[in-house]
Amino acid sequence: MKLTCTQENLNKGLNLVSHIANKNNNLPILNNVLLKADKNGLLLVTTDLEIGIKAFVRGKVDEEGEFTVGAKLLNDFVSLVPRENIDLELKENTLKIKSKNQKTNIKGMEAEDFPLIPEIEKENEVELNMNDFKTALSQLVFSASLDSSRLEINAVFFNFSKNELVLAATDSYRLAEKKISINSNQEKELIVPLKTIQELLRILNDQSNQSLKIYFNENQIMFVFDGVELISRVVSGKYPDYQQIIPKTFNTEAKFAVNQLVPAIKSAALFCKPGINDVRLSIADKEIVIASASSGLGENIITVPAEISGEANDIIFNYRYFLDGLSNLGGNEAVLKINNNATPALLQNRQNEKYLYLIMPIKQ
Amino acid sequence: MKLTCTQENLNKGLNLVSHIANKNNNLPILNNVLLKADKNGLLLVTTDLEIGIKAFVRGKVDEEGEFTVGAKLLNDFVSLVPRENIDLELKENTLKIKSKNQKTNIKGMEAEDFPLIPEIEKENEVELNMNDFKTALSQLVFSASLDSSRLEINAVFFNFSKNELVLAATDSYRLAEKKISINSNQEKELIVPLKTIQELLRILNDQSNQSLKIYFNENQIMFVFDGVELISRVVSGKYPDYQQIIPKTFNTEAKFAVNQLVPAIKSAALFCKPGINDVRLSIADKEIVIASASSGLGENIITVPAEISGEANDIIFNYRYFLDGLSNLGGNEAVLKINNNATPALLQNRQNEKYLYLIMPIKQ
Repeated sequence: MKLTCTQENLNKGLNLVSHIANKNNNLPILNNVLLKADKNGLLLVTTDLEIGIKAFVRGKVDEEGEFTVGAKLLNDFVSLVPRENIDLELKENTLKIKSKNQKTNIKGMEAEDFPLIPEIEKENEVELNMNDFKTALSQLVFSASLDSSRLEINAVFFNFSKNELVLAATDSYRLAEKKISINSNQEKELIVPLKTIQELLRILNDQSNQSLKIYFNENQIMFVFDGVELISRVVSGKYPDYQQIIPKTFNTEAKFAVNQLVPAIKSAALFCKPGINDVRLSIADKEIVIASASSGLGENIITVPAEISGEANDIIFNYRYFLDGLSNLGGNEAVLKINNNATPALLQNRQNEKYLYLIMPIKQ
Repeated sequence: MKLTCTQENLNKGLNLVSHIANKNNNLPILNNVLLKADKNGLLLVTTDLEIGIKAFVRGKVDEEGEFTVGAKLLNDFVSLVPRENIDLELKENTLKIKSKNQKTNIKGMEAEDFPLIPEIEKENEVELNMNDFKTALSQLVFSASLDSSRLEINAVFFNFSKNELVLAATDSYRLAEKKISINSNQEKELIVPLKTIQELLRILNDQSNQSLKIYFNENQIMFVFDGVELISRVVSGKYPDYQQIIPKTFNTEAKFAVNQLVPAIKSAALFCKPGINDVRLSIADKEIVIASASSGLGENIITVPAEISGEANDIIFNYRYFLDGLSNLGGNEAVLKINNNATPALLQNRQNEKYLYLIMPIKQ
C-alpha cells in the first residue's frame, strides 16, 4: 500500500469513522481503522460489530493494499499535521507516514483479521434531505428509552410509506413523532438502535442541503451521504402500536408562547419538593397557572397568558419530560391538549403539525 | 425590608456573589446571600469565611432592613424572571417576591446570624486596568500549586512596587511571572490564595477597559470594581525567592513560531510511552527536532524551523508543562532559552518581555 492524499481529506474521513472504533477491550482490532487503498482511492472502515462506517478519501494510489492501525491515534495524529500532502506507505507491518516536516511510524495489525462489514444491495432507494433528517432525529432521540434491555424502544422507529417517513421514539413516559417527506414508493417498518441514531447525529452534516440515501433489507439499514456509508443492524421485533394511545379528542386546549411557559416551568421546578419532579398546571380563564411549593424552600405561583378552549382543567407533569417536549417543538407558538390525569397529553407546534410530543401526566 | 429593582440589576448582582455561597454543609447560613436594603439601595453579601463578596444593586428602597435566603435558589429564580421590575418584601421570616406574572415566597434565615465581613480602610489605593489584570492572572493561574497543604504556593504572589505590579505563580516544576503597570507608590509583597484568584477570574469583566482598585493591609486584600468588593485573607509566610533560580545566561537560544511548535509537541505526545510525559527537543542547525517513541505504538520525528544561537543542545520536558507555557505566551513569536537538563529553561514572547515562563527540564 502506497498513496498520497491531503491532510484535509484524510482528517475529515478519520473524524467520521473513528468515534465508533474507540472502546473495545475484548477484540483489540475493533479499536483500529481499516485503510484500504485501491485504484479509486482510500477507503477508511471502522466497526463495533453492530455499526459499520466507511468513508471514502480521495488520493493518488501508487500501490494497492490494506492495513489497520489504531483509529484514535491516527485521527489525533492527522488532526495535528498542517494542511499539506501526506504520504502513506505500508512496510514491515508498520504504516509509514511522511509529510513536509515529519516522519512517523505507526504499528498496526493485518487487514485480514478485520471483521467483514455486511453489504446491502443498493436497490429500493429512499432519498431525503439530510438537514430535514438530522433535525427530525434531534427532535425525538431524547425520548428513546435508555434501557438497553428493552431493545425495541432503546431505538428509533422508522415507518416508510409513499413519499413520507414517520419517525418515532418513546421511553413509555413520553413519545415524540416526526413526519418528513421522502422520495420513495417503499413501505416498510424498521427499528433502528438508539446507538446508531446517536452516531448518525454525530456525523450528519446539518449545514448541508444535500440529499441522503437510505437502503435496507430485513436485517440491516444503510445511510449513504457525502462519501460515507453507515450500516447498522436493525432490531427484530414489533414497535409499540402508539397510534392507538393518541387521544382523538381533548377536553381542553391551551395555546401559549413557548418562551413564556419554559421559564415558568423552570421556576416552578426550583420549588419542587426534593426528589419530586411534579409541576401542576391549572388551565382556565385565558391563563395557565403553574404552582409549586416545598415546605423547606418556599412556594412559587406563575401565570402565563394563554388562549384556552374547552373546559377548565388541572394536570400534573414531570417537568423534565414536559420541558424536553417544549424545547423541541421548533417554534414559539404551541398548543397543549389534555383530557385528564389518566390519558396522554399532546404538545404541538401550532405552525407545524409534522411533529407531535405525547406525554403521560402524573396521577395525583 | 421593602424595595423594587430591575430583574437585570438584581440578576447581575446575584451572578457575581452567589458562586462562593454554594458549598457549606457545616454552617448552612453560608449558603445564603445577605440582602441589606438601606437608603442607597440593595447590598448583596456572600462569604465562605475566607473570601467575602459584596455587590451593590440599584433600587428604590421603601423600607430598610436585612434578611438572608439561599443564594443559589434566589439566583436561579431571578435568572428566569423576565426583564421587568421585581418587588422584594420581608414578611414573617419569608422573602416575598412579586413581578408582573408571579408571586414567590422564599424562606430564609435572620440577617443577625450572618457572619461579619472584615473591612479594609480605603487608603493606600492601587489602581490598574481591569483587562490587563485579568489577562495577567489567566497567564499564570495554571502554574500555581494545587496542593492545599502548601499554603504559600497554593496561591499567587503579588509584589507591588512603584508603578509596577509583579505577579507570579509556581508549583515548583514551573513558574510564570507577569509584570503589569499600576498607578501607585506603594511597596508590598502579598500572597493571595489560589481560590481567591479563581473567584476573581470568574467575576472580572474582561470586555472592560475600566479600572480596578486594590486595597490591602497585613491580613487582607480587597479588589473593588464596578459596584463589587471582593475581600480575601492573605497567606502569611514568605513566597519562594524565585528570582535567584532564573539563569542569567543561556548556552542556547531558539526562536520559533508557537503555532508550529505546539502541534509538533502534541504529535510527539501521542507517541510517549504510556504514563510518561517526556518529550525530547534537539536544537541545532536552524531547527528543533522533536522525537518520541513507544514500542507499542510507533514513533514520530518532527522538525520545526527555528533561528538558533549558541551551541547545539538537547533537552527533555514534561510536554504538559511545556504546552501550558507555549499557549500562554500571548503571541506567536517565541524564544526558548536553555542551558542543560539541570537548570531551568526560559520561555518568552519575543514581542513582550513582561511575561516569562520558567520550566524545569527532566533529567535523563
